[in-house]
Amino acid sequence: MKSIVLFGAGNVATHLFSALSAAEGYKVIQVYNHQKERLEEFKDKVPVTSDFTEVFPADIYILALKDEAIPLLAEKLLFKEALMLHTSGSTPLSVFENFSKKGILYPLQTFSKNKAVDFKAVPLCIEAGNDQQLQEIKELAEQLSEKVFEISSEQRKALHLAAVFVSNFSNYMYSLGDEICRENDLPFEILHPLILETALKATGMAPADAQTGPAKRNDFNIIESHLSLISGERKKIYQLLTESIRQLHGKEL
Amino acid sequence: MKSIVLFGAGNVATHLFSALSAAEGYKVIQVYNHQKERLEEFKDKVPVTSDFTEVFPADIYILALKDEAIPLLAEKLLFKEALMLHTSGSTPLSVFENFSKKGILYPLQTFSKNKAVDFKAVPLCIEAGNDQQLQEIKELAEQLSEKVFEISSEQRKALHLAAVFVSNFSNYMYSLGDEICRENDLPFEILHPLILETALKATGMAPADAQTGPAKRNDFNIIESHLSLISGERKKIYQLLTESIRQLHGKEL
Repeated sequence: MKSIVLFGAGNVATHLFSALSAAEGYKVIQVYNHQKERLEEFKDKVPVTSDFTEVFPADIYILALKDEAIPLLAEKLLFKEALMLHTSGSTPLSVFENFSKKGILYPLQTFSKNKAVDFKAVPLCIEAGNDQQLQEIKELAEQLSEKVFEISSEQRKALHLAAVFVSNFSNYMYSLGDEICRENDLPFEILHPLILETALKATGMAPADAQTGPAKRNDFNIIESHLSLISGERKKIYQLLTESIRQLHGKEL
Repeated sequence: MKSIVLFGAGNVATHLFSALSAAEGYKVIQVYNHQKERLEEFKDKVPVTSDFTEVFPADIYILALKDEAIPLLAEKLLFKEALMLHTSGSTPLSVFENFSKKGILYPLQTFSKNKAVDFKAVPLCIEAGNDQQLQEIKELAEQLSEKVFEISSEQRKALHLAAVFVSNFSNYMYSLGDEICRENDLPFEILHPLILETALKATGMAPADAQTGPAKRNDFNIIESHLSLISGERKKIYQLLTESIRQLHGKEL
């Protein structure tokens, strides 16, 4: 049985804690967070602390923290023989340069506090200091998820960028659609099935092949009519994306 | 039993034909398309024609055609007493000005030829020449779908614009993510669960409240690091969307 101290109390830490509690061969022996009040929901399940000097010795330390907190804590942690892991998409492995055993366990999913997630289906991107450590991290990761990928720091950076496009920017497109609906007394739920089907389609075929719409069709009448309805930021976004889609699909002719 | 002639053989026409075949009180008596070869898949199920002079008299004509074909056919159709319907998101009702009974039946979904769609869950936006005709169209629409919305021509135009943002532009974000993955030897399937969860989240809460990512957090380190990885169109898109998200969420402070 390997002992784990988990750092963090945010969305990733919360969902990771649940997944770790169900993992065989591992036990979370403590959760640390610098804000005591954030530990409320953990304290009936596991020893907690917000005092750094009280952190238990353990086999594995997992830092499920904001990016900027990871180097600060890595500097303070004195258990140099333990396996150090963090869960960040954008922090390099070198943040643990003073530790002999280190790796990354990056869950590529968007977590909400009160929404259950099937962690077994969450892609886990792992990286390690060496092959032996990779094996150790893989064993842990495979207890948590059925989708484990070995990803280098450089690839992880690109993956995080791709995730911004497919998740943060897509969500922003939804929010612009929502605004347009509100302004026109339209319930946004009319668009829900379209949003879900568009996402589902992109997981069954290459998204470039699934592209539809006036930009793809070079339908200037519709494009002009849409542009006449919007101004400011929205217009700039509509124009730039339309032009970019036209360039991509124009090239294919 | 009301008789229907369906015009068109594309994705919308194909899925609509299946839904109409299951509707009680209605019967598709003919499918017209100007390209004979496109009628192949219909000809075992229903009389078909690509000769305009052979179009049957019917109670209802549904034009499930490309936008530019609708006014051309509306001009040629001589059954002035029938109920005329089209399925376009961007063609006004006035295209049927020479007909006494007219309306719109706009299914707000993305259809693929070989992918089954539960038509009962497809939002149908309807509009009519007057209240009595609205009733007639509503009866038909409710046979096809459980989600029927009364939408004016002006609202429909805004809805179509919103659909471009939430569907066409979101899909383009997926395709940029796909490109970044390919360039970095990453399987795009790593991003599938994130894409689906992001879409699902936006149907359970306001998308603006679901916004996450470096732009929302004002995380300039990550933004700079992402910008250093991209150039050209992608960089312009990343910058514009990041700036726009920052403005939206900055205002909320």
